[in-house]
Amino acid sequence: MKNAMDLLIDKIKEKNNPTVMGLDPRYDMLPECIKLKYGKDVKSVCEGILEYNKALIDATFDIIPAVKPQIAFYEMFGIEGMKCFKETCKYAKEKGLIVIADIKRGDIGTTAAGYSNAYLGKTLVGNVEESFYDIDWVTVNPYLGIDGVKPFIEDCKKYNKGIFVLVKTSNKSSGELQDLKLEDGKKVYEKVAELVNSWGEELIGEYGYSQVASVVGATYPVQIKELREIMPHSYFLIPGYGAQGGKADDIALGFKDGIGGIVNASRSLMCAYKSDRWKDKYKDEEYAKATREEAIRMRDELNLSINK
Amino acid sequence: MKNAMDLLIDKIKEKNNPTVMGLDPRYDMLPECIKLKYGKDVKSVCEGILEYNKALIDATFDIIPAVKPQIAFYEMFGIEGMKCFKETCKYAKEKGLIVIADIKRGDIGTTAAGYSNAYLGKTLVGNVEESFYDIDWVTVNPYLGIDGVKPFIEDCKKYNKGIFVLVKTSNKSSGELQDLKLEDGKKVYEKVAELVNSWGEELIGEYGYSQVASVVGATYPVQIKELREIMPHSYFLIPGYGAQGGKADDIALGFKDGIGGIVNASRSLMCAYKSDRWKDKYKDEEYAKATREEAIRMRDELNLSINK
Repeated sequence: MKNAMDLLIDKIKEKNNPTVMGLDPRYDMLPECIKLKYGKDVKSVCEGILEYNKALIDATFDIIPAVKPQIAFYEMFGIEGMKCFKETCKYAKEKGLIVIADIKRGDIGTTAAGYSNAYLGKTLVGNVEESFYDIDWVTVNPYLGIDGVKPFIEDCKKYNKGIFVLVKTSNKSSGELQDLKLEDGKKVYEKVAELVNSWGEELIGEYGYSQVASVVGATYPVQIKELREIMPHSYFLIPGYGAQGGKADDIALGFKDGIGGIVNASRSLMCAYKSDRWKDKYKDEEYAKATREEAIRMRDELNLSINK
Repeated sequence: MKNAMDLLIDKIKEKNNPTVMGLDPRYDMLPECIKLKYGKDVKSVCEGILEYNKALIDATFDIIPAVKPQIAFYEMFGIEGMKCFKETCKYAKEKGLIVIADIKRGDIGTTAAGYSNAYLGKTLVGNVEESFYDIDWVTVNPYLGIDGVKPFIEDCKKYNKGIFVLVKTSNKSSGELQDLKLEDGKKVYEKVAELVNSWGEELIGEYGYSQVASVVGATYPVQIKELREIMPHSYFLIPGYGAQGGKADDIALGFKDGIGGIVNASRSLMCAYKSDRWKDKYKDEEYAKATREEAIRMRDELNLSINK
């Protein structure tokens, strides 16, 4: 069987599209047609969000390889939100998409194992091991060192899954910690990159990339280029495109021979119907069509830069 | 009104006990009497865990100030686990305990706000803001810098809550990242400590401690002592006592005038009935009595060291 990294690259090649659609729904992002259809209690709101997610998946599953639900946006609706998260992942899997759950968990030993069991592996329930979510990849925080990452790596091996470890994040203040300069002249994120390299050595697939991959923000082009050198076997999950200011040409620095990264867009895809670019062409109830057209535009823009 | 930090210190003083009971249940930790009473499907197992948690709270709420459910151990049971987490927090609050949810979340901007809304604040649902959990404090990961922490600080102000930011964790490999030496001779965790200091400046209460507090592992006594100097206004949540090897005398280095930290014990309290110390005195069905006796022993041991 192909490993999880090869499967993701295959899917990106099949769709000729290195885009992952972030599914980060908030109530105020919902189109009016959905808001009007559902009640305003939390159960109804989450049903509305699920309809929204499903419609966005329906409109794009044939042209994108993956979705990335950000779990915070479901956790914030309590139990009902988590049900919506579960159903969203399930629906995306049914449509043949790869599911990257953006959970950024990081903890020690048995606790990290708990998280990994929850989202990648299985949990002992009574006498049997049970799996609760349909997820292929998760994001992981490296602050606690290998103790916090190892349980995830074990589950990557056992269940053929993958992880993206935070190396250099896309946000403004990411440098406060990640850019601190060490006594040997390297920066913290470079050191983390070296750790990620070593953690992933055993799990390199046919394309030369490891199931232990990394998060590298589109907003830091110099670092993208540098990290591509330091981590030749690490696929990049690249947030920060669009709204946050990351450009296609910058992102292309993380690619080599047409592969090397998968670029996240959340709001620019989900709320395309409200964007300056598409709001005059599409009505509120055509929100999914707007998302599809923006996904095509984004795909073509990225490919143009990557294949320059 | 007193701020969240003062309320926690008041509670610790009232009980004369700087212990927080970690509620990190796993199926294999449950006493046989509970395993036999409930079915083996996930709903029944989570009901069993809730009975276990409630019994442990009933047995200790008059002698401990707080509980710390580690959310991974609930997330790993999917939706049913999250219901159990919610009910556990609610029950502990009803019993007058302070609830510290160990969630170690860390993300950027709106995502961090999502997490903070979920566990400390409120979420916009339809036209109203709703709160889903009864939680006073959460733990937060600093890897993304202030962007990831600010939304939590906002909610600390708005809803009178508190956060413990990871500074130096108790696990073996915590040094891989946290102990890296910077060009100015400081270590990463010391730099994080300085950041935490500055983040918490505005939220210092009557006892001189801030609602922006920190996590400092009991397994690193040299660092506890040093961090007490660097962060004079930071209360310590101290994991690593007992099973992980942290000693009461080491922990006492984080205290000054009898206050300064709250020490977590999970397995040693929850599974006291199975421990070498108590297994001959208490039968399986007396598990809660064993937890109470261990909680008293731990309290007295800590106080002896703190008041030396």
